[in-house]
Amino acid sequence: VREIFATEHALRKHYDLVESARRVGVPVSAVSESAAAALSETVNPQGLVAVCDHLDVPLAQVLGAAPALVAVLVEIRDPGNAGTVLRTADAAGAQVVVFAGAAVDPYNGKSVRASAGSLFHLDLVRAADPAAAVRAIRAAGLRVLAATAHGGVDLDDLPEAVLAEPTAWLFGSEAHGLPDDLARTAHAAVRVPIHGRAESLNLAAAAAVCLYTSARAQLRESRRRKESTNDAEDV
Amino acid sequence: VREIFATEHALRKHYDLVESARRVGVPVSAVSESAAAALSETVNPQGLVAVCDHLDVPLAQVLGAAPALVAVLVEIRDPGNAGTVLRTADAAGAQVVVFAGAAVDPYNGKSVRASAGSLFHLDLVRAADPAAAVRAIRAAGLRVLAATAHGGVDLDDLPEAVLAEPTAWLFGSEAHGLPDDLARTAHAAVRVPIHGRAESLNLAAAAAVCLYTSARAQLRESRRRKESTNDAEDV
Repeated sequence: VREIFATEHALRKHYDLVESARRVGVPVSAVSESAAAALSETVNPQGLVAVCDHLDVPLAQVLGAAPALVAVLVEIRDPGNAGTVLRTADAAGAQVVVFAGAAVDPYNGKSVRASAGSLFHLDLVRAADPAAAVRAIRAAGLRVLAATAHGGVDLDDLPEAVLAEPTAWLFGSEAHGLPDDLARTAHAAVRVPIHGRAESLNLAAAAAVCLYTSARAQLRESRRRKESTNDAEDV
Repeated sequence: VREIFATEHALRKHYDLVESARRVGVPVSAVSESAAAALSETVNPQGLVAVCDHLDVPLAQVLGAAPALVAVLVEIRDPGNAGTVLRTADAAGAQVVVFAGAAVDPYNGKSVRASAGSLFHLDLVRAADPAAAVRAIRAAGLRVLAATAHGGVDLDDLPEAVLAEPTAWLFGSEAHGLPDDLARTAHAAVRVPIHGRAESLNLAAAAAVCLYTSARAQLRESRRRKESTNDAEDV
């Protein structure tokens, strides 16, 4: 946070927050209601606006930290969707979200708000070339799974041992799905099964199901390892 | 469908659809672009408006059909959310969605559009009294699980045999969650684990994770039963 602008009302209402920013040297300026409204994109602005640095980090840097769960959003255009997937990925324990290709600006106001803070919880990467990003992720030793609406392996048929490996999920946009040529560069195409008569799941719901399935398998695997280590120590 | 209004353009574009409606006796009227716009709620209307009957059925009737997977939306107010959960529940194979308490009108235009057709795929129930609905569902022999953000059993710790039983999931609104007194009338409160630092999941994502977990367990159980029947026949 570089600078804060707030209305008199917001300064009183968020006194503790504003004071803690001041204490670490962030300039705080009082502005009129109309100035705060002009700075905001919402219909009912909260009267508090912060100027922040961009947060994204290079892909090579995050891959160096050996992440266990990564979500790659390919050519995702809808800012609300992007923010919701960020929030979902955070909840599912993904350490990295990659905005790949001609994606929406992750700092779009709608995306930031829909992420409900998760933008600040995980490593955000912007990768202009999705194919190059997938190559780098594979080279770092992660299993790359392409989430598809049709074809591929059923998510429920993936062995838990496979799901427990460090994994990057590729998700396409809701309108166009994942480009075929990119999906083919993954280790496997994986389909979230449709049990009813819906044509498809929305992106955030599909991401929730895929990422939570990986997270559960990874957690079980790490528990099993701990138990076997404990057993070994008991002996 | 009782009656259709369409612009000249829409009559040409959706000729097959309009003709099939005419064949089953649905009156079709040509209207002007401005009349079609006035009948629509969207910014870019498609020029095709149908007057339809309400679809909801009484709870007692759907429970009589012994559903295996039911989603109960308690006091859900956001029409977009309601529609998205309908679509998710359909994809996960739920046969019934109950709009309980002071919920949004499921026929709200936004809800209908967000459901992407799923409104027509499953049984829709409207129940004014959520507590009475839960009592009826329990009396019909379903296991009632209350999805909560905090407390309760971790979803991943529920035994698969429990998840495989006929189940009704209770979901609260994103703003207020599930009322405590109602959650206590369920067989168990179940928490979708938050692995990262997000405060919570959005409603559709939480519903996706819960309903898909039940669907997977039910499918595995039915496969196991079939296999054991086959084994018995082999002997």
